[in-house]
Amino acid sequence: MKKKVLILGSTGSIGNNTCSVIREFDKDFEIVGLSTNSKIDILKNQIKEFNPKKIHISSESALNDLKNDLKEKKIIYEGNITEFVRDIEFDILVNALTGYAGFLPTIEAIKKGKTIALANKETLVVGGDIINDFVKKYNASLIPIDSEHSAIFQILRHFKDAPISKVIITASGGPFLKTKKEELKNVTVEMALKHPTWNMGGKITIDSATMMNKGFEVIEAHHLFNLDYEKIETIIHPQSLIHSMVEFVDGEIYAQIGKNDMRLPIQHALTYPEIINTPFEKLKLHEHSEINFYKMDFDKFVMLKLAYECGKKGGLYPCVLNAANEICVYSFLEKKIGFTDIFDIVQKICDREINIPLTIENIIKTDKEIREETLHEVELLQ
Amino acid sequence: MKKKVLILGSTGSIGNNTCSVIREFDKDFEIVGLSTNSKIDILKNQIKEFNPKKIHISSESALNDLKNDLKEKKIIYEGNITEFVRDIEFDILVNALTGYAGFLPTIEAIKKGKTIALANKETLVVGGDIINDFVKKYNASLIPIDSEHSAIFQILRHFKDAPISKVIITASGGPFLKTKKEELKNVTVEMALKHPTWNMGGKITIDSATMMNKGFEVIEAHHLFNLDYEKIETIIHPQSLIHSMVEFVDGEIYAQIGKNDMRLPIQHALTYPEIINTPFEKLKLHEHSEINFYKMDFDKFVMLKLAYECGKKGGLYPCVLNAANEICVYSFLEKKIGFTDIFDIVQKICDREINIPLTIENIIKTDKEIREETLHEVELLQ
Repeated sequence: MKKKVLILGSTGSIGNNTCSVIREFDKDFEIVGLSTNSKIDILKNQIKEFNPKKIHISSESALNDLKNDLKEKKIIYEGNITEFVRDIEFDILVNALTGYAGFLPTIEAIKKGKTIALANKETLVVGGDIINDFVKKYNASLIPIDSEHSAIFQILRHFKDAPISKVIITASGGPFLKTKKEELKNVTVEMALKHPTWNMGGKITIDSATMMNKGFEVIEAHHLFNLDYEKIETIIHPQSLIHSMVEFVDGEIYAQIGKNDMRLPIQHALTYPEIINTPFEKLKLHEHSEINFYKMDFDKFVMLKLAYECGKKGGLYPCVLNAANEICVYSFLEKKIGFTDIFDIVQKICDREINIPLTIENIIKTDKEIREETLHEVELLQ
Repeated sequence: MKKKVLILGSTGSIGNNTCSVIREFDKDFEIVGLSTNSKIDILKNQIKEFNPKKIHISSESALNDLKNDLKEKKIIYEGNITEFVRDIEFDILVNALTGYAGFLPTIEAIKKGKTIALANKETLVVGGDIINDFVKKYNASLIPIDSEHSAIFQILRHFKDAPISKVIITASGGPFLKTKKEELKNVTVEMALKHPTWNMGGKITIDSATMMNKGFEVIEAHHLFNLDYEKIETIIHPQSLIHSMVEFVDGEIYAQIGKNDMRLPIQHALTYPEIINTPFEKLKLHEHSEINFYKMDFDKFVMLKLAYECGKKGGLYPCVLNAANEICVYSFLEKKIGFTDIFDIVQKICDREINIPLTIENIIKTDKEIREETLHEVELLQ
């Protein structure tokens, strides 16, 4: 019996890599659903190759283009993406959506008691506590795809109850590892989009450049592995060969090392709990004669510091952080604001008292309000 | 109930470190026996601190010196070291003897069904197949202490049945990592004794310089982890921070990283299967800004190549290799032969047909014969 896979965000980097993995393991998996925001050319190829039962397109104009173009019109799902998850039958959801948009679809898959291979870290950033409660309540499974959490997950799945002293999340340092703090204000979109080790979408590449992505990963690790923030460290490791590490109380650190190839953690998430021969090229460690470690610079990468602060405050703070950040990153990509304006606006937005409790409704409401407020801040700078 | 620990070779580097660990965990362990070859000054201090029931001194002159000097004469055990292991009551044997001398004491401890914390890798080199059979038969436990095998053991104890593609044993490269092959013939004893990362005894330091030590580790890994030689790789990693690695079939490599501090693997071996807070300083990874990997040079380090060959041939070949090597290393330390004479003599001695089966008796006999033959080769060079 093939496992039925639903891929949200199938035309992005993780989505495409998931298709590559399933191409290799086509005896074990079939794709039942695909979704894209607007990249219908890629989607059309995926439809041709994988023959999904249903597809979803978020952008209205892209949807109309596809409708005019596609013969098998009945495979187009017309509801929103959360309803898409609710209505389609699947075993594994690969959530490769970008940003807050991934949150409600994850909730829906959890409610169905399914396995979620999670690349969308914002799901846990905005609602980690709720997600964890729901996973328990509905007996669902959450398996991280991003390389850092996949590494930690894979270490801990084997080390089970061994007492952890800390996890150490590696950070490449992004394109501005060697840029002085004072020079960050001169960073252009083109400069920020050049990530040294990973080839990813625009949003996450900017988040990597600001180190916000690492901040989200810290919050994600807190929820995934039930760890206090004091036990979550970050370290600069420019080559991204060590995907992350766990130190136990006996002083031994275990690191997962592998190629910078997202197909490996995707293979892990899809085939879990099996450990299966990979068809992809393995790392030749001796070809990497030098790897480095440097202390994280919180003074320069203020977004990471802010993520720790919002994470520790808990509740809706990470939701506020995420919403403000999303608006600022897209505004930067659209060249409406400068690189360090992202820092300033997000910090300003996060500097507030929040007195309403963490609920799904309040997440939806807060996300909406903060986006509007942040857009207003962006406009003030123009 | 404190666990009773017997330490053979208590005055060497591993022995001293074992005492340091037990000093920290004195609620859990008591030392019931100590042994030295001839370092009676260190032994006297250990007797004073740990109050063992019995001690053993191998060197006759050192034994006589101690007899004249020690008040508690009745604690001196008069038989040989194998009988010492047979007659004393203990829970854990820490076998930190150097060379072939460790083999029969290990056998004796296994026959008593005890736990052996094994630093003496020659035990497995000369008789690995026998040792494994005996461990099974007598329900004993073998826990490696040397850092490479401890690392692999600790990974595999958690990863249990996960399918291994290979183990990767790290090698610092020793003092001659950057020395050209042609220049090795000019190496002096003083040069060879300067190990870059580990502070160890003379014999093992020379074995590290010739890479014979790594060869023994390959054979040891074959027996400890039941791995074909094709699945045992070595890699140069000068900083010795990664103690070794295991790659699984899914392409993920797990590395154990920690301080160059033998007290950590000793703590692991003594407290196994518990994972206990270490009182010793943990590694600060960000203080190690650069670590390196280089391909092993088998053309330069011919002893390692020879160890693979002898290991693959199996039977008594590793016993021959070890005996010839021991004589050559001590001859080099006594300045009777040059550094590369070790290579030449050991290779010549190993180049033979062996038709007798691997038994304890044949190991004892072969070891003796090969030593005499090797001594003769050494004399020919003088």
